[in-house]
Amino acid sequence: MKIAIFDEGRLGVVQDGLVHDVSAALATLPVPGQPWMATKGDPLIAALEVLRPAIEAALPSAVTKPVAQARFRSPVQRPSKIVGVPVNYHAHVAEAEGDVATFSDRFRGSIEQQGFFLKAVSALVGPGEGITLRFPDRRNDHEMELGVVIGRTISNIGVDEALGAIAGYAIALDMVVRGPEDRSLRKSGDSYAVLGPWLVTADEIADPERLDFSLHVNGELRQASNTRHMIMKLAEQIAYASRFYTLYPGDIIMTGTCEGVGPVVPGDVITCTIQDIADMTVAIHPHYTGSEETK
Amino acid sequence: MKIAIFDEGRLGVVQDGLVHDVSAALATLPVPGQPWMATKGDPLIAALEVLRPAIEAALPSAVTKPVAQARFRSPVQRPSKIVGVPVNYHAHVAEAEGDVATFSDRFRGSIEQQGFFLKAVSALVGPGEGITLRFPDRRNDHEMELGVVIGRTISNIGVDEALGAIAGYAIALDMVVRGPEDRSLRKSGDSYAVLGPWLVTADEIADPERLDFSLHVNGELRQASNTRHMIMKLAEQIAYASRFYTLYPGDIIMTGTCEGVGPVVPGDVITCTIQDIADMTVAIHPHYTGSEETK
Repeated sequence: MKIAIFDEGRLGVVQDGLVHDVSAALATLPVPGQPWMATKGDPLIAALEVLRPAIEAALPSAVTKPVAQARFRSPVQRPSKIVGVPVNYHAHVAEAEGDVATFSDRFRGSIEQQGFFLKAVSALVGPGEGITLRFPDRRNDHEMELGVVIGRTISNIGVDEALGAIAGYAIALDMVVRGPEDRSLRKSGDSYAVLGPWLVTADEIADPERLDFSLHVNGELRQASNTRHMIMKLAEQIAYASRFYTLYPGDIIMTGTCEGVGPVVPGDVITCTIQDIADMTVAIHPHYTGSEETK
Repeated sequence: MKIAIFDEGRLGVVQDGLVHDVSAALATLPVPGQPWMATKGDPLIAALEVLRPAIEAALPSAVTKPVAQARFRSPVQRPSKIVGVPVNYHAHVAEAEGDVATFSDRFRGSIEQQGFFLKAVSALVGPGEGITLRFPDRRNDHEMELGVVIGRTISNIGVDEALGAIAGYAIALDMVVRGPEDRSLRKSGDSYAVLGPWLVTADEIADPERLDFSLHVNGELRQASNTRHMIMKLAEQIAYASRFYTLYPGDIIMTGTCEGVGPVVPGDVITCTIQDIADMTVAIHPHYTGSEETK
């Protein structure tokens, strides 16, 4: 099943090029009794299996619209963390080590030596919201990745059980401002974490480590690879992360980018494809220049 | 006003050694209409000014208990991010540069060169929950800091206006596993971000950059300094962070630790004091060894 959140917070199921509005199923979503307290898990993803009969019941009478007319939000709205896996494709490692001036030599060594990094949850958007760049004088790069969404609460999970903890997959863009600073700062600007256009539940992906993917900017091919080229495999990623911290439903792992990482500027249009998941189009809006304050 | 969350999610005001249970005021807390959607701000902190009359109205008839009998949670439960400021006291910079084997040489340069880092929101606890160490074979250190809680939504804010965006202050423990990995991984273990025991609203702190603070482990003095020794001042920290990303109500800035950083082991008891804010006691629980899974 392809689960989407679209427009002003509607719940959708994508089938045959149409979004079916199944928001009626949200009536059965468990509501937290103390909304001021931490929940440590995305309420929708945590309840996905429970909601599934209600979603299926809502489908036959659902109002539909063409996918092209929906504004897709991130299918996960409230993750407790967004985890990034560095240097996970050999050809990307080679391009980063070959251009230290751009990629910085602060980040060196194997994945285990570098460790995973975090992106701020406040950076998360869906493709319908687009990307707004913050630093016009610095290089802002696209890094396209397979996004993995965790389905249940796990800690110190074994490699053998790790894939069973996945709720589903989506296309992820790990946007970054180049420079010497900590990755968790440069990769956390508002809209620098794109997830979408929907979540494909794990049961629909026979082998997540055999998926072609590609990224174009303004129609020009920039990145293309297959998830079989990942250095650290998905199960190892989940097991490794869960040794450092508990993973909660909705936590997102951006599983590393392949070669071809490059800059974007305002006005560019990114199109991404992952086999069996989706095509996704994301606009680069004008640079953010003003200040914003809400009292 | 000293605002606390204690026991099983009660709202408290601390006065004269007593916690006054003002949970009745939460009846006026705005409840999100779409609990599955991101809010990007702590609901309690965002509403603090609006709630204040209800809190004051609840005070005279509030049930009380001694502070020593309350189990304090983090006074912020749902921040969108926890931001850490590295190398912000000269004497700590000296001790880190003098012991590269422990502190790693991956993290070098000025604050602006290193940039701020993130701690996972899922790591956040209050002192009543204590700290559970995850890696018994590695060094786990205490880093005591002034915790700043942002009160409203700000982006690209100027230095002159930055202090006005602060909701209040608390004691922060930025716990860390030493090693070569990304800080945002090593500082994000469950319970590795302690905030408490309560939030002192900004109007009660005449000068947050003139506060003595100290940390003892099992009664032995380890860290002692004054917030006037910060290299990057609070207003500059907020302005700098807000250039990279929007700060939301409840976002926490851990403003950097002073010299005296050192290891803790299970069974240790940390006691922290910040002038005009609080004393805070935090137990180090046994190492986390098991696996945990909730379906």
